Amino acid sequence: MLQQLNKEVLLKRREALEQVIKRRFIYQPAFSLYGGVAGLYDYGPVGCAIKTNIEQYWREHFIIEEDLFEIAATILTPEPVLKASGHVDRFTDLLVCDIKTGTGYRADKIVTETLEQRIAKEGDKLGADVKAKYLAVIKDVDTFKQDKMKEIIAELQIKAPETGNELTDPSPFNLMLPTIVGPSTKLPAFLRPETAQGMFLNFARLLEQNGGRVPFGAAQIGLGFRNEIAPRGGLLRCREFQMAEIEYFVDPTEKATFKKFNKYINLEIPLLSRQLQADALQHQPFKMGDAVKAGIINNETLAYFICRTYLYLVEIGINPVNIRFRQHQADEMAHYSSDCWDAEIEMSSGWVECVGLADRSAYDLNAHSNATGQKLQAARKFKVPQPRQVLSIILDKQKIGKELKKDGMALIKYVEALPDDEKLELSEYFQTHDEKVFNIDGKDLTLNKQLVKFEQKTMNVMEEKFIPHVIEPAFGIGRILQAIIEHSFNQRDDPQKTFFKFSPRVAPVKCSILSVVQNEEFDLVIQELTASLKKLGISCKTDNAGVALGKKYARTDEIGIPFAITVDKETLTAQSVTLREIETTKQVRVPIVEVPRIILELSSGLILWTDVLTKYPLFAAKEEDA
Amino acid sequence: MLQQLNKEVLLKRREALEQVIKRRFIYQPAFSLYGGVAGLYDYGPVGCAIKTNIEQYWREHFIIEEDLFEIAATILTPEPVLKASGHVDRFTDLLVCDIKTGTGYRADKIVTETLEQRIAKEGDKLGADVKAKYLAVIKDVDTFKQDKMKEIIAELQIKAPETGNELTDPSPFNLMLPTIVGPSTKLPAFLRPETAQGMFLNFARLLEQNGGRVPFGAAQIGLGFRNEIAPRGGLLRCREFQMAEIEYFVDPTEKATFKKFNKYINLEIPLLSRQLQADALQHQPFKMGDAVKAGIINNETLAYFICRTYLYLVEIGINPVNIRFRQHQADEMAHYSSDCWDAEIEMSSGWVECVGLADRSAYDLNAHSNATGQKLQAARKFKVPQPRQVLSIILDKQKIGKELKKDGMALIKYVEALPDDEKLELSEYFQTHDEKVFNIDGKDLTLNKQLVKFEQKTMNVMEEKFIPHVIEPAFGIGRILQAIIEHSFNQRDDPQKTFFKFSPRVAPVKCSILSVVQNEEFDLVIQELTASLKKLGISCKTDNAGVALGKKYARTDEIGIPFAITVDKETLTAQSVTLREIETTKQVRVPIVEVPRIILELSSGLILWTDVLTKYPLFAAKEEDA
Repeated sequence: MLQQLNKEVLLKRREALEQVIKRRFIYQPAFSLYGGVAGLYDYGPVGCAIKTNIEQYWREHFIIEEDLFEIAATILTPEPVLKASGHVDRFTDLLVCDIKTGTGYRADKIVTETLEQRIAKEGDKLGADVKAKYLAVIKDVDTFKQDKMKEIIAELQIKAPETGNELTDPSPFNLMLPTIVGPSTKLPAFLRPETAQGMFLNFARLLEQNGGRVPFGAAQIGLGFRNEIAPRGGLLRCREFQMAEIEYFVDPTEKATFKKFNKYINLEIPLLSRQLQADALQHQPFKMGDAVKAGIINNETLAYFICRTYLYLVEIGINPVNIRFRQHQADEMAHYSSDCWDAEIEMSSGWVECVGLADRSAYDLNAHSNATGQKLQAARKFKVPQPRQVLSIILDKQKIGKELKKDGMALIKYVEALPDDEKLELSEYFQTHDEKVFNIDGKDLTLNKQLVKFEQKTMNVMEEKFIPHVIEPAFGIGRILQAIIEHSFNQRDDPQKTFFKFSPRVAPVKCSILSVVQNEEFDLVIQELTASLKKLGISCKTDNAGVALGKKYARTDEIGIPFAITVDKETLTAQSVTLREIETTKQVRVPIVEVPRIILELSSGLILWTDVLTKYPLFAAKEEDA
Repeated sequence: MLQQLNKEVLLKRREALEQVIKRRFIYQPAFSLYGGVAGLYDYGPVGCAIKTNIEQYWREHFIIEEDLFEIAATILTPEPVLKASGHVDRFTDLLVCDIKTGTGYRADKIVTETLEQRIAKEGDKLGADVKAKYLAVIKDVDTFKQDKMKEIIAELQIKAPETGNELTDPSPFNLMLPTIVGPSTKLPAFLRPETAQGMFLNFARLLEQNGGRVPFGAAQIGLGFRNEIAPRGGLLRCREFQMAEIEYFVDPTEKATFKKFNKYINLEIPLLSRQLQADALQHQPFKMGDAVKAGIINNETLAYFICRTYLYLVEIGINPVNIRFRQHQADEMAHYSSDCWDAEIEMSSGWVECVGLADRSAYDLNAHSNATGQKLQAARKFKVPQPRQVLSIILDKQKIGKELKKDGMALIKYVEALPDDEKLELSEYFQTHDEKVFNIDGKDLTLNKQLVKFEQKTMNVMEEKFIPHVIEPAFGIGRILQAIIEHSFNQRDDPQKTFFKFSPRVAPVKCSILSVVQNEEFDLVIQELTASLKKLGISCKTDNAGVALGKKYARTDEIGIPFAITVDKETLTAQSVTLREIETTKQVRVPIVEVPRIILELSSGLILWTDVLTKYPLFAAKEEDA
């Protein structure tokens, strides 16, 4: 079970797997009839069912377990929201274009590919220095800013690959897909690049549902969109992709500890910390309690979600040996983030980021507060009054009255009533400014710094406001699905006989019902059994064709149906069928009436195949003879 | 149970319901922080959970039961696809704009509203003729074409409502939301207006998965987008909306009969047929077998899906008395459609179309075949050879050779090898044309009509090709959800005490776990019980606050949690809890260990509350006293 499915093993299988993916329409490029569109994929019945199942289990594992508030916000998002969140200005890749044809390329990709080709083609002829320079550029090119990129393209004479033409200077290309809502207002909008913003915007409503208490979490499963310059093959970098995100809102003074984390302090998870990366070392297992104590992971809340993510991935069928959590370098994180870890899964294309776990601090709630003027805060309530430093404002009322006449009173009233945090903001503002203009009842009134004093006082308060911090686990469903498919794919002794060892929870169809030969009496049994399985909501696939049983098994193996029920002569006399497990191909004999319940419990993880093996007699027929 | 929830009853409750929808964030306008965007709604935790549950049961009821192929195709759709499907040209509403301000209005809406206001304001002063004219226009205005609309606007002097300004001439406004994919190719694309096209485009792949056999069905649950000119309140007409669609592909020679329809020939469903509408009569119940026999419903396949749709709606909690199926008028259907029925549900705003069931004939497969040159066909296979009229082409080879020299041979070879249907097309083409140009190996070669003869021959064939017809049930999930919420909403004797009588399958949270008073021992029981419920994937809500039990019940009633488990003193001694049902507020006493299984079976429809009542002793405490 715990074999190391490293990149080489997975690469070797990849061709056979690609054939199955295509032949059984697990997923395929969209719009092939019309020539296709890069970065868009359709999920066929097998892929779609696996996707539904891993989403459904995500609900159980995260939403039900943590009592998260699941919401469904819209994909259409007006521009001001994404301006505030920073996406309009910063959600970009560097684009270069062929100066004559206008064809666009992602700057980092074209540099990497050109240099890799030169190395492959010219090899040692390049000279050690040049080769070293090329390798250094390849390693860091995805972090280059606009100027550095321009410099490198000029220095290394990178040209358009198809034509050899010059390239335009690199410029930032916004990766959001634009649209316009409404015929009248013509509201500029984008397709959301992440589901997160919908949860931040509903923060106040959700806080109310939670009785004003923090911590609580919001969750959302839905599509995100990126107008990729260079979509990658398969499901790894698509323009339209399914995500599952959690925004867990915590009191920043409390995020260091998380009660339920206690369960996991001895859980060992492979970490590739910032330090290990700096030392050019591999990931290594850490006890999670130790990782927090040693300050490797910033806080228990983040560590708890790392644990839950690891357990989720293993439960849905990712090989645990091929999972690691890689910490972001300081210069790799968003500036507001205090710690960030990616769950990476080793696949045929190497280690792939599949889940991002970030401490986003108060960045997003702050951004939307500032943009809308509506405070997105929670309150910390005290059982007994707490002494707190409170900033009080002392105004020179006389001078203000003299200067502003009757407007003076309005200004005094307004400033004295400012909430605590705005008083603090004002005191900071006056450190660099001499006056502040307030718009009060439609009139601009100016307050001169000279007329204000600030004084810290200690007062007893019953509550204080704060902006929650956010811990965000964000799952890329398509990438996880591709990983499951790669890790589950197997070939028997005959490499043509392929099968998927899916976890029964995740398997697209839970069982097949086969007849050992074509026979009308068998068909009746199959119909009844199918009906009773469907009544429990269990998906099954019948095959009563007149072909050898071995061939029927091969067909259901190919799409990873974990359990096969076979109706044979004994079924008619003994009211029993055989039940076969896909990986071991072992069979047991089971009373028909017990079958639906067994399949239900196997597929919901309540019992394991080993439980079935101990309870029912082994059936010894060879598949080919049957 | 079967009370008539007519429009008036529902309207009376609507205000109290709106308050609950807002207070408990069932759904709310999106982007309120930023001033909101009409036609966009976010589902909060309660609405989102109901949505997930009705989708999940849709999977069981349709996808698993009919062995449909569920797929997930993309929302981004390149323009040529929607050009072929007819959406680029015909998916429009008539738009008029204020000639000075540019504000846009939906033409039919502005006419209706203006005339309704005039009637309301001026009443009898209008005169009987004018009033009758207005009412006639209001009735038909949504069917007016561009010219007729222009005429009416001029004749009745309709102006912009806010300004009184003149309006521009009505012009078709395309309701698809446009975008551009990729920085380089800049592919014009739209957000899909329906999920259907993704299934037509994958027809050939799915046919292959079904072993080349028809009938089979594809299904898809996902978002559709319409750039509505005038979004309506609530979830009824949104710009972004969840759909669940089936495309059931059938052999047109076989769609008249559908084996499983036999089960439903005696099922009575309220139909509002074309005839009843013409006679200005109400809908009335029909036995479905009779409706097909009498030719009211075109075929058994369509009738079967009407039955399944009806059963689905009832199962998820729509009041059966408020469902009817309304047949489209001949001029209301798409030209390619042979029959079309809407499942309409009576709500506070009247009868609302929630599901459309259309026989789309071969329109879509034909359209994409023609646009791409790739045949989207299935084959009818015969067990014994069947005599079929086959069209054979006889060419005057000598003359062709003379005219075209060596190109003549290429032309002869090409034309003789044409598939049967293209031979037929050619013979039809020559009825109105004198010559046909073929592009063969990059060369245009002209075939003169005079050099061709067609001859019908009877030949024995083993299969023949055909383009399947499509029966399409299309569900609007948001509308159905709004109907469920309206039909489930109830008030107790005290109208402030509101509750939802959701079907347990659909209920957002399956049970609440309450403590009769605050007590640490009770908390331990609650924790254990919660853990065992979560292990089965059952959502539950705990409330151990120090408030009266009656208040806790009111809170869980308000969001429609069907079952409440209460921990009391007896729990500690007898290991039992009380279990309360929301509608009757009846309680029984149940051993703790049996609770998780009971809730699981109640929520998956395996047992009913009446089964629980017969098995466990009634518990008689009054809620207020507890």
